[in-house]
This record gives sequence, structure tokens and C-alpha cells, in this order.
Amino acid sequence: MKRIAIDMDEVMADFIAKYLLHYNRDFNDNVTHERLHGMHLRQLNPELESHLRKCLDDPSFFGDLPVMPNSQEVVRELSERYEIFITTAAMEVPASFAAKYNWLKEHFPFLNEMNFVFCGDKSIIDADYLIDDNSRHFKRFKGQGLLYTASHNVHETGFVRVNNWLEVREYFAGI
Amino acid sequence: MKRIAIDMDEVMADFIAKYLLHYNRDFNDNVTHERLHGMHLRQLNPELESHLRKCLDDPSFFGDLPVMPNSQEVVRELSERYEIFITTAAMEVPASFAAKYNWLKEHFPFLNEMNFVFCGDKSIIDADYLIDDNSRHFKRFKGQGLLYTASHNVHETGFVRVNNWLEVREYFAGI
Repeated sequence: MKRIAIDMDEVMADFIAKYLLHYNRDFNDNVTHERLHGMHLRQLNPELESHLRKCLDDPSFFGDLPVMPNSQEVVRELSERYEIFITTAAMEVPASFAAKYNWLKEHFPFLNEMNFVFCGDKSIIDADYLIDDNSRHFKRFKGQGLLYTASHNVHETGFVRVNNWLEVREYFAGI
Repeated sequence: MKRIAIDMDEVMADFIAKYLLHYNRDFNDNVTHERLHGMHLRQLNPELESHLRKCLDDPSFFGDLPVMPNSQEVVRELSERYEIFITTAAMEVPASFAAKYNWLKEHFPFLNEMNFVFCGDKSIIDADYLIDDNSRHFKRFKGQGLLYTASHNVHETGFVRVNNWLEVREYFAGI
């Protein structure tokens, strides 16, 4: 059985949606997903780094992120034909460990927690496919990377791209 | 640069030493490491399972485990010639995430936390070597497994065995 590794933030969990709520509240702004098109978060505001860090260091922040549309049903379908591992760069935000674990158990209860991987450098991952919004993880990955579209990566080329979970379904239906 | 993945409990951290303190206190017993020779913990006592689970579910339990003799200097030496990843089956004990992370940062400050991997099924690990006291992790591992001696595995055969960190040093000096 082939194996698919799937990133969490910006792939399964809509981190940006929640962060923008906090950002707009604290900076009295009205930034939308659309305005972020082609941008990294840190381009929004020179003061963003410390605000973002405060959110990331809040152990509960990752506990109620919205689920990406269609991710639950497509991951469930894929889990019938593939080994699914969830591979998240949680070491960048150690305060998030428990919330990330609980979020996965709540929203993807059909997944086996023995297949959750909290890591940093994803070159340690041995899988056939990796669905991720950060192309840097594909550099030393031996399988096929699938770049999941996020505001910060829309201008990147040279990768197999999936724009949403329906396109993930399509991709795996076609191979 | 080749890569060594290293397990934590019973390899870098002396989990059993701390657990026996709790066990002997709570069961008014005097079990030593020696008495465990060739045994799994659960063979000690039919009531052990719930006692053990209580310890594992205590978020602070893993925070002050003793460091295995010579592990710090040997891992440091190896880190000059190999990529070192720490791969621990933390998903079996989700309450341990923060304590395990802090323990590594305290006792192995020279390691990069981006190379810490909290997982369950270690077949996801892409490394050349895996030092582990649980031989089940070698079954689907593509590299060379090194069985680190622990009470529960002394009767297992068919694996390359290292009895302590000085033997780990010797093994890697010889290849």
C-alpha cells in the first residue's frame, strides 16, 4: 500500500482564517484571504512577527482552526487505498503539540494516531507522496511532492499543484 | 551525510529507573533493574497496567528522567559526522509531548529541534540507522537497525545489538 503524507496547517487546517481574525482585531484592519494573494504573512505589517509569535505561543491557538473544505471526506476516501500519515512541522511551535493532537482526533477520528508525525525537517519522512503548502519540504523528499495552494505560494512554479481537496481527489483518481 | 535516528526512552532516557521508583513506592516493593532481566514491565504485577498508565498520563513524568550514561558525549561526537534525528513514539503518550521536548532541549542542547520527531509508527522514518530498544520498529525500517539492550529485549536474537553508548561509539568507529 502506497503512503501519502499530509501537512496540517494551510492544508487540513485553515490557520490563516483564524490568524486574520486576531490580526484584524488587534490591528484594527480588515485584511481578507484575497488581499494576501501572492504574499507571505510577514509582508502585511512590520509589527506582525511579534504578534504572530504571541498567537503561536498560545497553547490553545491551534485547537479550533477551521477544517479545510472537503478535506475530511477526501482524506477518508484516500485512507481506503493509501496509508495516510499526518506530518506537521510542530517543532516550530512547541506550544501547539497538544492542541494539534486533539484537533486531529476531533476532526479526523478515523485516522490512527500512530500515524501522526510532529517534526521539523520533513526530509525524515519516508512516503510516496507529500501534500504540503511549503515547497521547501520537497527539496530532499524522495517521493512526489504536491504543492497545496496557499496565498504565499501562488507564484511558485515547477511543482505539481493542487488548489483544493477536490483537486487532490482528482489527482489520486487519475494515477 | 548519513543519518542516524535515535529513540528516546530506554536509549537516551532511563525511563525504567524513574518508573521503578514510583512502582516500588506505590506497591511497597523493591524491584531492581536486575530483577527485570528478560522481562517486560507488565509481567511484574497484574495491576501494573493501570499504575503505569497513570504515570504516563502525568504531563511531568518524562521531564526529569535520568540521562543514559555516556549518551550525551557519544551523540555529540556522532553529530559531527552524521545527521542526528531523535525519533520517539510519543503518540503512545500524548501527555508527554512538552516534557519530552524540554528534556531534549535541556540535556542535548547541541541538537537542532527541527530534527526531533514525535511519531508512533516509525516506518515513516527515512534514515540510514535506527538505534531503538523495540525491535518491532525495525520490521519496515529500510536502514540498519541497532537494538539497544533493555531488560525486555535481552533474549531477542537476529539483530545487531548495542549494550550501551560506548558500544554505539565503537559500532560507528568501525564502519
